[in-house]
Amino acid sequence: MIEIAILGHGVVGSGVVEVLSAHKDSILKRAQNEIYIKYILDRREFPDSPFADRFTKSFDDIINDDSVKIVVEVMGGLNPAFEFVKQCLEKGKSVVTSNKELVAAKGAELLKIAKDKNVNFLFEASVGGGIPIIRPIHQCLAANDVIEIAGILNGTTNFILTKMIRDQMSFQDALVLAQELGYAERNPEADIEGGDACRKICILASLAFGKHVYPEQVYTEGITQISLNDIAYADVWGGVIKLIGRVKMMENQGIQIIVCPMLIPKESQLANVDDVFNGILVRGDATGDVVFYGKGAGKLPTASAVVADVIDCAKHMGARKYLFWSDSVSNYVHDYLDDTTSMFVRITADDVAAAKTKAEVLFGEVESLVRKNASAKEWAFVTKPMQERDLQRKLDDLRKSGFTVASAIRIGDL
Amino acid sequence: MIEIAILGHGVVGSGVVEVLSAHKDSILKRAQNEIYIKYILDRREFPDSPFADRFTKSFDDIINDDSVKIVVEVMGGLNPAFEFVKQCLEKGKSVVTSNKELVAAKGAELLKIAKDKNVNFLFEASVGGGIPIIRPIHQCLAANDVIEIAGILNGTTNFILTKMIRDQMSFQDALVLAQELGYAERNPEADIEGGDACRKICILASLAFGKHVYPEQVYTEGITQISLNDIAYADVWGGVIKLIGRVKMMENQGIQIIVCPMLIPKESQLANVDDVFNGILVRGDATGDVVFYGKGAGKLPTASAVVADVIDCAKHMGARKYLFWSDSVSNYVHDYLDDTTSMFVRITADDVAAAKTKAEVLFGEVESLVRKNASAKEWAFVTKPMQERDLQRKLDDLRKSGFTVASAIRIGDL
Repeated sequence: MIEIAILGHGVVGSGVVEVLSAHKDSILKRAQNEIYIKYILDRREFPDSPFADRFTKSFDDIINDDSVKIVVEVMGGLNPAFEFVKQCLEKGKSVVTSNKELVAAKGAELLKIAKDKNVNFLFEASVGGGIPIIRPIHQCLAANDVIEIAGILNGTTNFILTKMIRDQMSFQDALVLAQELGYAERNPEADIEGGDACRKICILASLAFGKHVYPEQVYTEGITQISLNDIAYADVWGGVIKLIGRVKMMENQGIQIIVCPMLIPKESQLANVDDVFNGILVRGDATGDVVFYGKGAGKLPTASAVVADVIDCAKHMGARKYLFWSDSVSNYVHDYLDDTTSMFVRITADDVAAAKTKAEVLFGEVESLVRKNASAKEWAFVTKPMQERDLQRKLDDLRKSGFTVASAIRIGDL
Repeated sequence: MIEIAILGHGVVGSGVVEVLSAHKDSILKRAQNEIYIKYILDRREFPDSPFADRFTKSFDDIINDDSVKIVVEVMGGLNPAFEFVKQCLEKGKSVVTSNKELVAAKGAELLKIAKDKNVNFLFEASVGGGIPIIRPIHQCLAANDVIEIAGILNGTTNFILTKMIRDQMSFQDALVLAQELGYAERNPEADIEGGDACRKICILASLAFGKHVYPEQVYTEGITQISLNDIAYADVWGGVIKLIGRVKMMENQGIQIIVCPMLIPKESQLANVDDVFNGILVRGDATGDVVFYGKGAGKLPTASAVVADVIDCAKHMGARKYLFWSDSVSNYVHDYLDDTTSMFVRITADDVAAAKTKAEVLFGEVESLVRKNASAKEWAFVTKPMQERDLQRKLDDLRKSGFTVASAIRIGDL
């Protein structure tokens, strides 16, 4: 019998209890050991729970009980999750978490402690909910160099963009609908400003390339500025706008990493990832493109990923799993302005002809896009690929010449 | 240092040597051990290979060398692959194979020997080439009941169907093109008649549900009867025709398994899996739908999957990995005629009105489909879901009434 403690009894935490109970027999078979929930830490009380006698309000009960070998952290947030997880690892307990904020901010530090203590720190559920992604990437890595990872990593923003694309709903209306359906929080900032997707691409980048990438190092743009005009032009161009987190290995062993809305061709395997679904493309030198698709969130998918990690810990008591990356080094994350991209640009101007002339002087040949019902004062085009620093300078020149740059959306070659 | 032998130096075998050489350093790091190719078995000679001194024509060299701990079987076919693999396992050597024919025909037997001898028998490359699928399914299984697996498992037929759908190429022309491009063999039977897809769904079914399913137990229909007429009607209906291998767990713990062309809606995540790509949908009770997508074949993707297994064996010398299923039991694989499905039916008749009347008597209400440029002697419809045995009886009744059933294609609710 292996005794575990669960920190937190919210959506994911209660899901973990549910999955452990519902799949008791098959888990016993697979873990080759009974997994026994000894403690559940929560400030609230759950007198009607079949596990009512296991609840505690005191973390000390757990940290001081040496019979607890595995701790599941599903509280979310950095405090007190970080302190709790750190103490557990230092005490020689393995930890499983679904907490992307924790892994993105403190992954290298916690993995180092886990390594020193010869215990496991696993976090399959922190990216992609129930989609197996952490282990498959590790598997891809075994005999293959990962070159690039790009993904639709946030279900809320993908739902909003899908509503804008399919039903011509405005951003605001789609956001309100997402909130009504429980897909978006009352304070939706972490989703719509790209912060959630940023944490996830940081975790994938750290795993794939071996050095921790911190969210603060990543240029992050959300979807709040995307309008139905842009959606219409994207369609004319033959694509859709998706919020993409992307990391690429560069020739000099540094990385380019970004989170931003991208215009991607309809043929891309990510273009059809709609609604609250996530899709993650892993590009390898030997495997080519491999795509993983599924529900990126939700109580049971996430809980089942957590429990799979618990089983893995239970099967490997005293043996370390593979997961590890070292801390960041300087100059490793390149300035996004050094990267090369094409850009979709939408301009409003009283004198569109003058804007066109100016744009062609600045950008050289561009691809003009024409949409139905466009205002006479609007013009949209796609530039050739060039360095982003150069692109931004030219956009500034346009602005200085009195033209309004209403949108500038990167083209994703995915 | 861990010494290995490679049986076969064809496309995959030479790819394995290439991947082991090109990724030598990272493999050393990951396997925590040098992997040394001691023998390569092939009837031919390769005097220009940097490994020329390791070639042997005698399997005895390998089986009698106790220092060889891992054997890679990439010869393909059942003979002599089965005998060789069996002997290796019995001698306590771990075996990695990409040979789907071998795993589909002899998996349970070989897994049993591996278990008895406490060695590994791994075959990630046998399904989906470089797409990680065997391990992720196992991972999904840990805390989740897999309910259904459905996949586009054969790249050759998917390429042919894609050409038919996109370019209105005939089946014959598309097959010739596939042969010219090296996607189809000179004798394409195993691909176009569904045999290759059948082996792969057998392996996935065995893995997911724990009992061996043999190809002979699976009703298998290829794509040779699919016409451009059917493709056009599929489009009208809002779908595409794909060759699908599907297995479902039934309520009484038996399974329904089939390989056949299916009409699937365009919204399905499998509908956009085009060209030589594979896509595999795994439906779980907790995870919901998870889809894996990528190149299902090719030298380097397949070789990199083989090498990942070799590394796994190297890291687990003396410790067994998880993979196991038991042999088949009677009544486990249900008669496909007991399953329920809707059917797309295309009829040619001198008197179409009479055919319609007869069909409506037989099938009740049906959904008529109208395509452009249809002959006046043709009519197509989609039935409601009913038991396949019942459906086939009604189709026979139509034939007996003098109408020609030109096509009957199952609808896939994927």
